Amino acid sequence: MIREKYARLAYHRFPRTTAQYLGHGVANAALLDEGFPDFHPPPLPQEDPYCLEDAPPNLGYLVCMRGGILFVYDNKQMLERQEPHSLPYPDLETYTVDMSHILALITDGPTKTYCHRRLNFLESKFSLHEMLNEMSEFKELKSNPHRDFYNVRKVDTHIHAAACMNQKHLLRFIKHTYQTEPDRTVAEKLGQKVTLRQVFDSLHMDPYDLTVDSLDVHAGRQTFHRFDKFNSKYNPVGASELRDLYLKTENYLGGEYFARMVKEVARELEESKYQYSEPRLSIYGRSPQEWQNLARWFIQHKVYSPNMRWIIQVPRIYDIFRSKKLLPSFGKMLENIFLPLFKATINPQDHRELHLFLKYVTGFDSVDDESKHSDHMFSEKSPSPDIWTSEQNPPYSYYLYYMYANIMVLNNLRRERGLSTFLFRPHCGEAGSITHLVSAFLTADNISHGLLLKKSPVLQYLYYLAQIPIAMSPLSNNSLFLEYSKNPLREFLHKGLHVSLSTDDPMQFHYTKEALMEEYAIAAQVWKLSTCDLCEIARNSVLQSGLSHQEKQKFLGQNYCKEGPEGNDIRKTNVAQIRMAFRYETLCNELSFLSDAMKSEEITALNN
Amino acid sequence: MIREKYARLAYHRFPRTTAQYLGHGVANAALLDEGFPDFHPPPLPQEDPYCLEDAPPNLGYLVCMRGGILFVYDNKQMLERQEPHSLPYPDLETYTVDMSHILALITDGPTKTYCHRRLNFLESKFSLHEMLNEMSEFKELKSNPHRDFYNVRKVDTHIHAAACMNQKHLLRFIKHTYQTEPDRTVAEKLGQKVTLRQVFDSLHMDPYDLTVDSLDVHAGRQTFHRFDKFNSKYNPVGASELRDLYLKTENYLGGEYFARMVKEVARELEESKYQYSEPRLSIYGRSPQEWQNLARWFIQHKVYSPNMRWIIQVPRIYDIFRSKKLLPSFGKMLENIFLPLFKATINPQDHRELHLFLKYVTGFDSVDDESKHSDHMFSEKSPSPDIWTSEQNPPYSYYLYYMYANIMVLNNLRRERGLSTFLFRPHCGEAGSITHLVSAFLTADNISHGLLLKKSPVLQYLYYLAQIPIAMSPLSNNSLFLEYSKNPLREFLHKGLHVSLSTDDPMQFHYTKEALMEEYAIAAQVWKLSTCDLCEIARNSVLQSGLSHQEKQKFLGQNYCKEGPEGNDIRKTNVAQIRMAFRYETLCNELSFLSDAMKSEEITALNN
Repeated sequence: MIREKYARLAYHRFPRTTAQYLGHGVANAALLDEGFPDFHPPPLPQEDPYCLEDAPPNLGYLVCMRGGILFVYDNKQMLERQEPHSLPYPDLETYTVDMSHILALITDGPTKTYCHRRLNFLESKFSLHEMLNEMSEFKELKSNPHRDFYNVRKVDTHIHAAACMNQKHLLRFIKHTYQTEPDRTVAEKLGQKVTLRQVFDSLHMDPYDLTVDSLDVHAGRQTFHRFDKFNSKYNPVGASELRDLYLKTENYLGGEYFARMVKEVARELEESKYQYSEPRLSIYGRSPQEWQNLARWFIQHKVYSPNMRWIIQVPRIYDIFRSKKLLPSFGKMLENIFLPLFKATINPQDHRELHLFLKYVTGFDSVDDESKHSDHMFSEKSPSPDIWTSEQNPPYSYYLYYMYANIMVLNNLRRERGLSTFLFRPHCGEAGSITHLVSAFLTADNISHGLLLKKSPVLQYLYYLAQIPIAMSPLSNNSLFLEYSKNPLREFLHKGLHVSLSTDDPMQFHYTKEALMEEYAIAAQVWKLSTCDLCEIARNSVLQSGLSHQEKQKFLGQNYCKEGPEGNDIRKTNVAQIRMAFRYETLCNELSFLSDAMKSEEITALNN
Repeated sequence: MIREKYARLAYHRFPRTTAQYLGHGVANAALLDEGFPDFHPPPLPQEDPYCLEDAPPNLGYLVCMRGGILFVYDNKQMLERQEPHSLPYPDLETYTVDMSHILALITDGPTKTYCHRRLNFLESKFSLHEMLNEMSEFKELKSNPHRDFYNVRKVDTHIHAAACMNQKHLLRFIKHTYQTEPDRTVAEKLGQKVTLRQVFDSLHMDPYDLTVDSLDVHAGRQTFHRFDKFNSKYNPVGASELRDLYLKTENYLGGEYFARMVKEVARELEESKYQYSEPRLSIYGRSPQEWQNLARWFIQHKVYSPNMRWIIQVPRIYDIFRSKKLLPSFGKMLENIFLPLFKATINPQDHRELHLFLKYVTGFDSVDDESKHSDHMFSEKSPSPDIWTSEQNPPYSYYLYYMYANIMVLNNLRRERGLSTFLFRPHCGEAGSITHLVSAFLTADNISHGLLLKKSPVLQYLYYLAQIPIAMSPLSNNSLFLEYSKNPLREFLHKGLHVSLSTDDPMQFHYTKEALMEEYAIAAQVWKLSTCDLCEIARNSVLQSGLSHQEKQKFLGQNYCKEGPEGNDIRKTNVAQIRMAFRYETLCNELSFLSDAMKSEEITALNN
């Protein structure tokens, strides 16, 4: 119920079945649907994806940050009176109470036992299902015409744009630019213009000799449990100049090289036809200009692709900016990240480029090394972002709350105007404390990684009941935090958690040209997944993605919003109805157990 | 020494280093080189690969089978006098003595302990090498210009032609033929001509609806330890008609469809530039016509590709042919397999097609389910092939000996004429008895699989000392006999066995378009192999392949025949010299241990 509250507030998704068992009557079904997130449908083939014309008028609202959260005011008078526009605003006090409630729950002995047992039961139940129905499932798939694992839609639900190309692709691109335009000015250093040739001369290298070995962007054994080493792999040949030149949206060339590579990746996706991807682009919050620049980069280089939808990742590196005196406080960082979005939402006509770009942005991610320890415990008494001026980095939970809070207000404002909303999809549970998973349980629509659910039966069971989507990247984990064979993906899938497969960083982790297929192939081989398993994962990936309602209908079937076998169109998903029925029955069974217990408790309470 | 004897006799390879430690002085180096196998270099670009002109004249020799082995006679008189042409002929008595010697050795307690300890030592030594030199190796590779894992040559050393295409490829091809030529006559049944449409009508299916699921050629969990089920996966949609039509060289269309698919696979290899493959085509031994038909298929459909070299696989299914009364005895089967080759070697002018085809054939394979038990123990007293008329199948060791014996005589005959020789490269140690590995130790140049070396320290150590190449296919094993994580490839590689990676059956096992890359990628990911490891495996694969001397010089370096770092050209192989030196030193160290022990034993014997 706690998660449901936060999900509804932010237009995040919450499964109907679970909601119904939690006590809402069927009468509320319409209301449930209203809470669905809203993604902009892709432009029609005859439409110009870069058309700046259709910007709605200025509402004239004012925005002001208070305590790290942006408040919207109808006009100056209301601002002076501190009477914000009627939108839901988050309340830190309630939030911390809710947090501590869940924290208490996950350490409660009997609850742990209960959840542990239910999870074991779920796993055994699936094994039984598999033994009994494996052949029937496959028979269903065999008699399903024209659809197989290769032509079901798959979305790469977690991939960083700066590493979305394969290492070989980057290498080829670097060589190509050097061959075709060595004398082009590509940077400015201390007022001096620098050509591509000069860049490589200063690095004492001839790109002709460059190999994937000397490029050295691939993660290896050296990166295991060394996120710092992994991060430095983003620098080709170890040179940050090349990262700036080839993998950034802001540089002397206006990010042209990066845009060209991303577009090459997009063309490959379009050719493959059935693969989609949700690359993450960075907004750092150093300056309020970043959004404008990013939108311009997107439009100027025509980066739109029907097979890509964009996510904005915000690295948790306030401490670095603060120590370099680029930011006075954490509040300023939040303002730099969110204020431009509020402005573009209130007055799209004066922010046409950003308004346009936001049509293709479907969510936010929070990224960095989760294993970094933080001394600060987030609570009601924590300094609010505007007075968080220390050089210390706020903890994970603090970041998540303030990201969520602002996205939530923004989504409500945008919904009011009929604009698309955003999902919060942070990295969570890759490493570090399991409390991260508690924060995300309240604030996130879905998460990336979720490995640490392994360590908390209560959280794992809650993530199951709430069917929280988890984008897993076992090859990434294998290089960074957890060996492939120990990855819980298979176990999670068996129990019925809503998992998808994603690549994270093809540049660092993958060997072949088709990174997502490599990810599926390895999972299928190592864990001996059946076609039905693979297609279930693929279906999950489309569901958890930011693809629009129209696209999901096309890819999953007209009724994809419905849960259970009703919502599955085997002709499009190639998931056996037997499997869907099993999942649905199993979930209903778990939920009815709980709701029966709740009811009998209520009766006991009444009787007493 | 025993292996060396059999290797020399058959023009198989034997490592110089090992030979030298076994007692040959350096003076014999020239002699050692003479024993090298001889593969026909590929035609030059301006040459016609199908040119039938250059056939050498008829020698007029006669050939006659005696005791399952083909003997060559200079003329009729010599045949009558039973005085064969001066070639080495195998001697079963010596062979069985040698076999029993090795069999005694592998069960000898102290020998087992010694080998077990040395193997443990080899593994630990490599770990130490890795810890100390991993970064230096990588540094060497980084400073090696223009060569990386992607552009070192790799040979798929074990792949069956009938499964060399990906399942999706086969599916697309079937659909394409149906779309473009549904009314073509593709078969004849009881004298009736049958069109493609009729074939599918009789199967009650529309190829438009066909999917990889309904095609059902992919191995899954159901094939584990079920070689029979795996074999039936060769039938698309479970229909042997389609196997005959699409995956056979002999049918109404003269194997046209199969040839077209193989050529499509070849084009992809040529485009990838760095990948080569050695597909296996079947000769069953049912009739003496098979060779002629196969050669004609090859030439008529122009199947030659510079990136493919061919191996002939002989299925061990005499029992099936015998029970169908297609063969009177096992000897007849051997005759059907080998006599045409002797004839084409003696009189190429009258067998121009086969003579040409044999230029591109580099070896023989013996294939079938090794886990089938046999009641018969091969010994001197076993009935010879001409009187093996029972319906029982001869055991593995019997097959191997007679295959080897005939190949050996054939190679000597061909060598005398300056024609290319063949390698015997049987499947061995995939399952069943470890004695198979003893047979192969004597008779094979190299083997496919070798999993069971895991179970015999003595054999494993012998395979190490003799550096017997092993083409391993962990993805195939994963679906059939051994889970991926339990595959000994990594361990064998560490110890210094001469392993390569191969795909076996891309149609059944692989998911992506690039099966060999998938194989390498999964091994790299699951076992965290370094670039140097991968390049060492790739180098091994070229060495153990049937590519010609000229090609090997081009792909591995001028001195590739030399062992140790001298023989390695890092600019071509991307294998660090540190690694090469480590391997060479380690092998020399093991060998000198043994040769010292031998010497001191000799001295003790003298003193006594």
